[in-house]
Amino acid sequence: MKRSLWIDAAGLPRTLDQTVLPFETREITLGSPLACAEAIRSMQVRGAPLIGAVGAYGLALALRADPGDAALESAFGELLATRPTAVNLRWALERVRARVAGLAPAQRAAAAWAECAAICDEDVACNRAIGRHAARLLRAASEADGGRRLDVLTHCNAGRIATIDEGTALAAVYRLQREGVPVHVWVDETRPRNQGASLTAWELGRRGVPHTVITDNAGGLLMQRGQVDAVIVGCDRVAANGDVVNKIGTYLKALAARDADVPFFVACPVSSIDPRAPHGAAVEIEYRDPREVTHVQGFDDESGVVRTLRIVPEGSAALNPGFDVTPARMVTALVTEKGVVSASREGIAALLAGIGADR
Amino acid sequence: MKRSLWIDAAGLPRTLDQTVLPFETREITLGSPLACAEAIRSMQVRGAPLIGAVGAYGLALALRADPGDAALESAFGELLATRPTAVNLRWALERVRARVAGLAPAQRAAAAWAECAAICDEDVACNRAIGRHAARLLRAASEADGGRRLDVLTHCNAGRIATIDEGTALAAVYRLQREGVPVHVWVDETRPRNQGASLTAWELGRRGVPHTVITDNAGGLLMQRGQVDAVIVGCDRVAANGDVVNKIGTYLKALAARDADVPFFVACPVSSIDPRAPHGAAVEIEYRDPREVTHVQGFDDESGVVRTLRIVPEGSAALNPGFDVTPARMVTALVTEKGVVSASREGIAALLAGIGADR
Repeated sequence: MKRSLWIDAAGLPRTLDQTVLPFETREITLGSPLACAEAIRSMQVRGAPLIGAVGAYGLALALRADPGDAALESAFGELLATRPTAVNLRWALERVRARVAGLAPAQRAAAAWAECAAICDEDVACNRAIGRHAARLLRAASEADGGRRLDVLTHCNAGRIATIDEGTALAAVYRLQREGVPVHVWVDETRPRNQGASLTAWELGRRGVPHTVITDNAGGLLMQRGQVDAVIVGCDRVAANGDVVNKIGTYLKALAARDADVPFFVACPVSSIDPRAPHGAAVEIEYRDPREVTHVQGFDDESGVVRTLRIVPEGSAALNPGFDVTPARMVTALVTEKGVVSASREGIAALLAGIGADR
Repeated sequence: MKRSLWIDAAGLPRTLDQTVLPFETREITLGSPLACAEAIRSMQVRGAPLIGAVGAYGLALALRADPGDAALESAFGELLATRPTAVNLRWALERVRARVAGLAPAQRAAAAWAECAAICDEDVACNRAIGRHAARLLRAASEADGGRRLDVLTHCNAGRIATIDEGTALAAVYRLQREGVPVHVWVDETRPRNQGASLTAWELGRRGVPHTVITDNAGGLLMQRGQVDAVIVGCDRVAANGDVVNKIGTYLKALAARDADVPFFVACPVSSIDPRAPHGAAVEIEYRDPREVTHVQGFDDESGVVRTLRIVPEGSAALNPGFDVTPARMVTALVTEKGVVSASREGIAALLAGIGADR
């Protein structure tokens, strides 16, 4: 299968429009910095690692058009402003900028392009490593529970199409599947945009992984009743103390996991750690369009088209925070490509110092 | 405004079809036991107190047609089987049956009918009393928080149209509004059937109560950030130890309330207490049609019709538990018509013994 972001015959980045999945498989070309910015802003692409890569390609495309410093800074700012919460976007943009900073303008576009390709390749390798570490933890959780079937609950989509390939949280699931471990995923639908019901269910289905969609309300009961061996989620940003900023509702699942003594793992590429955020409360939470709450998109089986329906009365207001903060104390472990660490200031400091990270 | 269940000019019970609210205001006549059973089963009526009253009228209508013991028992069984979780249904059916048991067949229909009217009148009085007690608690929570505006979060619909009038959880809100207290309600949309987004928002809007619809995922963040003074929910059944069986997702809000030190109140008519259930885990949880998860109903503003869309990929399974169990230890207080008691074996025993219930 193709990666989630690939270079087409014309040499331009191409991806799937995630706003119409799973109902339509529509490819889009990211042919300009503006197209990259718009794809991020409109959530045609989403998922912290994929956003980072698309942002990086946006900057590389800007440098093709104008490799000067002013154009670089202008494109950098515009791309960074598309989504405030994911730290990978800033990380990827800064990486490309740093790569080209000392170069003559004529060399910049090619160097930036190579850096984007490296970001993508490294993302896949990173996710494979996360999957290897997380699969071990999930197996252990299942064995501790005496389980035949490994039941994993996940929130939102931290899968293949949130990344370049493999996924972060779902990398472990795909690895277990390859190893022949019977694994089943409880998929939170993840209102308001339903990335679980639409994207996670879609990609698990394409790979033949058994899964069941549940409402965001249902996971607590399943954990109470012993039907979940472990929770694994991705993250948009992890603060220096181990607090996890992730899709709205993640915190509620962490609370339930703690109450039912279910391990709660966060798949966390090192690039998602933000040492500049001392704790989760310091991270700006993105408030998105209330229309995402008041309206729902789906497929009209009768007429065969994608439609949008209003689900609240006219005149009722809605609020749409995009993320919440799961306190570090509720996180069993952070699973990074460099190994498994505790969600704590010490664990993260050791990881970032490159020592004691593997265990 | 009319009650949620009223007797029309033809002498038959009438109500609103809640499956099409808030998009259509469609009245339906409950003209037969079968119509009552179907209205409950299809959730044209829902909410434990309203279900109880409709079940009672179903039994009274059956006795009009055939007042014999066999017909009574048959109708009793059929009506009871419509929804398994709400204890009020059994309570109301048993009340009507007990009322007519010792009577000659010729007297039964009229006696049953009078009993139904009494059930309805008592429900309204009960809810007013709950509202009086709960309003006091909510005011205190707001004052403890130094608040100008009282921010209450509720899940699902425990409002006017879950009852005969006033509501259970929302009775306090309506009372505070009448008293001139500035009150604002955070309305959980309450997937999968969206009773919050559709019914609670609708009835609060009709009464002019400021409110904001949020996804079920959002309440945790709001509580973390100090934007909720108190949570108040209804209940489908309360076990003898104070465990609360209520709409799926209630438990997650209780977890978040406890973590953020926000009071969590349960509006609980005494009729919702089931002394036969020793604890919540003993209550059968209703699993409803997965189609409620995989499909969403809403209003198509373009064409002006109510439609249903599929929101998961074809071939993905879904599971749809209707209720969860909030452990008694997470409930700040049970608010009954007889007063406020702790959610504990002792509190409930004292309440049911009729002593020490008021405080």
